[in-house]
Amino acid sequence: MASAEYSQAEVHRVIRWHPPSYIIQVETIAVPKIQHPDDAIIKVKFAALCGSDLHIYRGHGGVTQVHTCGHEFIGEVVSLGSTYGTSAPGRPSLYSSLKIGDKVVSPFTVNCGECHPCRLGYTARCSEGLLFGSPALEGGQAQYVRVPKAGATLFNLSDPKSWHSTLSPELKSQALSKIADSSLLMLADILPTGVFAAIQAINHPKLQPVLTGRPWPLCFSPSADGSEVTLTEEDRTLILAVVGLGPVGLCASVALLDVLATRQIPFKIVATDLLESRREKMKAVYDTIGADGRGQGQFVVKSPEDAKTLVKEWTSGTGCNAVLEARLLSILEVVGHPSALTLAYDLVRTFGVITSVGVHGAPQMPFVGSQLYNKNVSFDFGRCPARAMFPPAFDLLVKRQDVFGQVGHDAGLIDRIAGFDQAVELYRAFDKGEVGKVIFDPWK
Amino acid sequence: MASAEYSQAEVHRVIRWHPPSYIIQVETIAVPKIQHPDDAIIKVKFAALCGSDLHIYRGHGGVTQVHTCGHEFIGEVVSLGSTYGTSAPGRPSLYSSLKIGDKVVSPFTVNCGECHPCRLGYTARCSEGLLFGSPALEGGQAQYVRVPKAGATLFNLSDPKSWHSTLSPELKSQALSKIADSSLLMLADILPTGVFAAIQAINHPKLQPVLTGRPWPLCFSPSADGSEVTLTEEDRTLILAVVGLGPVGLCASVALLDVLATRQIPFKIVATDLLESRREKMKAVYDTIGADGRGQGQFVVKSPEDAKTLVKEWTSGTGCNAVLEARLLSILEVVGHPSALTLAYDLVRTFGVITSVGVHGAPQMPFVGSQLYNKNVSFDFGRCPARAMFPPAFDLLVKRQDVFGQVGHDAGLIDRIAGFDQAVELYRAFDKGEVGKVIFDPWK
Repeated sequence: MASAEYSQAEVHRVIRWHPPSYIIQVETIAVPKIQHPDDAIIKVKFAALCGSDLHIYRGHGGVTQVHTCGHEFIGEVVSLGSTYGTSAPGRPSLYSSLKIGDKVVSPFTVNCGECHPCRLGYTARCSEGLLFGSPALEGGQAQYVRVPKAGATLFNLSDPKSWHSTLSPELKSQALSKIADSSLLMLADILPTGVFAAIQAINHPKLQPVLTGRPWPLCFSPSADGSEVTLTEEDRTLILAVVGLGPVGLCASVALLDVLATRQIPFKIVATDLLESRREKMKAVYDTIGADGRGQGQFVVKSPEDAKTLVKEWTSGTGCNAVLEARLLSILEVVGHPSALTLAYDLVRTFGVITSVGVHGAPQMPFVGSQLYNKNVSFDFGRCPARAMFPPAFDLLVKRQDVFGQVGHDAGLIDRIAGFDQAVELYRAFDKGEVGKVIFDPWK
Repeated sequence: MASAEYSQAEVHRVIRWHPPSYIIQVETIAVPKIQHPDDAIIKVKFAALCGSDLHIYRGHGGVTQVHTCGHEFIGEVVSLGSTYGTSAPGRPSLYSSLKIGDKVVSPFTVNCGECHPCRLGYTARCSEGLLFGSPALEGGQAQYVRVPKAGATLFNLSDPKSWHSTLSPELKSQALSKIADSSLLMLADILPTGVFAAIQAINHPKLQPVLTGRPWPLCFSPSADGSEVTLTEEDRTLILAVVGLGPVGLCASVALLDVLATRQIPFKIVATDLLESRREKMKAVYDTIGADGRGQGQFVVKSPEDAKTLVKEWTSGTGCNAVLEARLLSILEVVGHPSALTLAYDLVRTFGVITSVGVHGAPQMPFVGSQLYNKNVSFDFGRCPARAMFPPAFDLLVKRQDVFGQVGHDAGLIDRIAGFDQAVELYRAFDKGEVGKVIFDPWK
């Protein structure tokens, strides 16, 4: 099965990386073809540039193979492997229902939906997982892209009944008809990753005394009484920090505010980044959020040093209950500046939580054992299971169109939409921190 | 207020550490006196030797001050500060009710019960917290010991109504009349620390898909449906490891088995240690546990290399859902052996949990960033909030008298009870791993 247009296409335009580093070329190569019955070919509408693309761009990670870049894309199904169009009992439903012409968004990694990690919702570590835009799998900064295990990997925006939501199917359809594709593209990586950071932090057991009002370990027993301790209003105010205000940090902040507002949890949050331009963007985003998404608390944006001072003031030196570390773009890891993890450690209190969704590379963890023991720190590391996080990320995208609906606006997450002719310059500018989130239109 | 016997005592016998290292002396010094209205003086019945005592013994940690050793003790109240014996509205109840002659056990650190960390149950990081047997506070390997903030620190075994339990007050009293003081002494550190390790692991969000049968992030919503994923029986079997089978590792294993049995969770556990003598003790302990404390699963004891092989076999290479790292005694951290944390990392699966209750010192964390990112690892580090963990630890002590009631038995946690005249030799032997858990009787 394939669309007529795709069937006639022989070549397409792609953004390709060449070793050893900093070499980006726009090239015309053969279109991708179905290689496996579970494959789909997507005609790309938009593909975004992500902070983690810079790891390979800069020559980190030991990559030597030329490949097509990009792991965030949205588009339309133009070809399907032989698996599709027949009933597929026991397999994820898209293996039966996905059709040519469906609008889809893909998570940044392939997931089969059928292995043990996938069944548990840990789709980012699927046993057949591959990262788009890597030597293992051609990326989405292209006119066409091949998606392995497409019936489990893709999110079908043309079939609102196909995923769980707190919204009704009607509201979902209504929302889908209004939301721009550039906005839906945020579902590929940065929005689920931000939601993941927020959900991990809020559900951590170390925060449960604050949320339940019962001390550890009684906080785990819904029916437990017998404590002679009464928590004060101050004890029950969550003190939180977001470290790193790139696109993921912005999404994490919005997601965190939403869950706090929804659950009516009192809080104080400080959001911090070394770059003033990112702090200004965060302030503009916060000012744009409607009252329903701000909740019952304070949200303050500060430089790292001022953030440390503020948290000390707020807590008489105790520190944050949880710190969300979302610094994907390592532009700020320059000599003399503390790493994001060190800053997170400085900000967190004893028995606090550091949720790290940043990509970490070769450097040794910047901690000695006694630091972690003495503060009773908990850490969560690693990659967002983006496919599993789609449903709550979608609901947040719909609710927060005041933020995610903006393009090229001070308060928008997306700085600009550009053609491939600007790719070389935009990679350079993005690497230098001169431009924020960029989306490519491969057909412009 | 003071007992007649204590009032007449001028000196007492103590086990003292001298710098720089490996120097232990039994000395006669002046008895401790009330220094603050919240103090109590305890006449020590038994005081134990703990793996973490060896850090100072070996001259690690930069301690230079001569002091009385020991942070695990049980005894009787012989003197109380002026706070006691009057009503103390708003303060922890022992400030009103503690009496001369009460039998008490103390956690290994002081906690005020009134600061923010204490209110949250994080008593190990009390803002006025002090570790017994350190330069900051004279220890319990003595005939008498001063307990600061005693009305919040101590656990009053003479007043069974004073703490929350799943047992009735009658059952508690009945149990208390039967359980030996050498067994109750386990409540000072190793039993709550073992329970803490088990509770932290089981309550970690990363384990919730296995426990609830719903994938992440639906596992957090009791009412959520809408998942098309069905978890298999294998997915829902917890695969766990306990690394380090010293006294805390034994307690952690028994606690883990108890919570799995109580909650009827299917499991496979491998418990491992480099020392064969410890593995034999673990096997003997397991064989002693009654059917009600073993649950619905397998419990296997293996060497570290065999443990890795077994977990691979059990999981087709996937790894453990959670690893409890309980290696307090650093005797095994010798050249050529992987550290306990490295072994835990090797055993854990992607999106797995490492709960570390071991004491970690100066060495850098043995991980680079990409290892933690690539496995999506979660860590919990730090010291057990022993005072907060007393109630569940007490319940477990009562239930598992088949294990904790044994002294000098193959399956007992306590190897021997000795007088102070054997202190020098027993410190040496304990440091070399030649003897297990030792209890001192200061009056023998």
